[in-house]
Amino acid sequence: MFTLHPTLIADTLDIGELSLCKVLLSNDQRFPWIILVPKRSNIRELFELNAEDQQRLWAETTWVAEQLNQHFGADKMNVATLGNMVPQLHMHVVVRHQNDAAWPSPIWGSGPAIPYESADIATLKNTLSKLLISNKHPI
Amino acid sequence: MFTLHPTLIADTLDIGELSLCKVLLSNDQRFPWIILVPKRSNIRELFELNAEDQQRLWAETTWVAEQLNQHFGADKMNVATLGNMVPQLHMHVVVRHQNDAAWPSPIWGSGPAIPYESADIATLKNTLSKLLISNKHPI
Repeated sequence: MFTLHPTLIADTLDIGELSLCKVLLSNDQRFPWIILVPKRSNIRELFELNAEDQQRLWAETTWVAEQLNQHFGADKMNVATLGNMVPQLHMHVVVRHQNDAAWPSPIWGSGPAIPYESADIATLKNTLSKLLISNKHPI
Repeated sequence: MFTLHPTLIADTLDIGELSLCKVLLSNDQRFPWIILVPKRSNIRELFELNAEDQQRLWAETTWVAEQLNQHFGADKMNVATLGNMVPQLHMHVVVRHQNDAAWPSPIWGSGPAIPYESADIATLKNTLSKLLISNKHPI
């Protein structure tokens, strides 16, 4: 039975689901920052997924990175799975701009998140849902 | 014509090659830290690789992570492609321990590298070459 880790629930907005992953938006307006979480229980490491799920995770990750890159005009996409603090496998897909709050450093440890304004959230979720969920993806 | 970025040459020890990637060891004894670099020119982003190379990169990344995890008894593997400073696609595969120099933070920005002792390098390269290159990998 898959359930999201409480920290991931607390720190993100729910955008929807792909074939394998929950699609979450990190609630930090400093960076367009998607977190993909495979809907599988008790998985901490990439190689703990079965071969088919590994392929799906990579395909969904790469596809989300490409969509975000195009939509937000990224200077660079950052893709990472760390999990030192939240022990549920999750993949960060982050749009980086050369004028963002952390460039060229990684976003982690770059100071506290700045949550989105409540008034902006519905539009934002709608835009990202169209881009990442309704949009035809290859899996 | 593929050539390694000068920063990657300067900061690493050459371990060998897999089917797609050069296998480099970051010259920082604080973390067992492999860097995989696809032997393709002018690639900055994951989605710029063709579909076959994407699959190979993920397979090599996951396989290297699994081997390092087992060999070094990792508490967590960290896998990331950032590239904000070095514009040649490269994948970090890093063994993390709960008593390492940066835990639980990411390794980037955690202070200056501590190079390996010259006397240890031949043995280290030999061990990693056996683990990651000679060892039968699935690609």
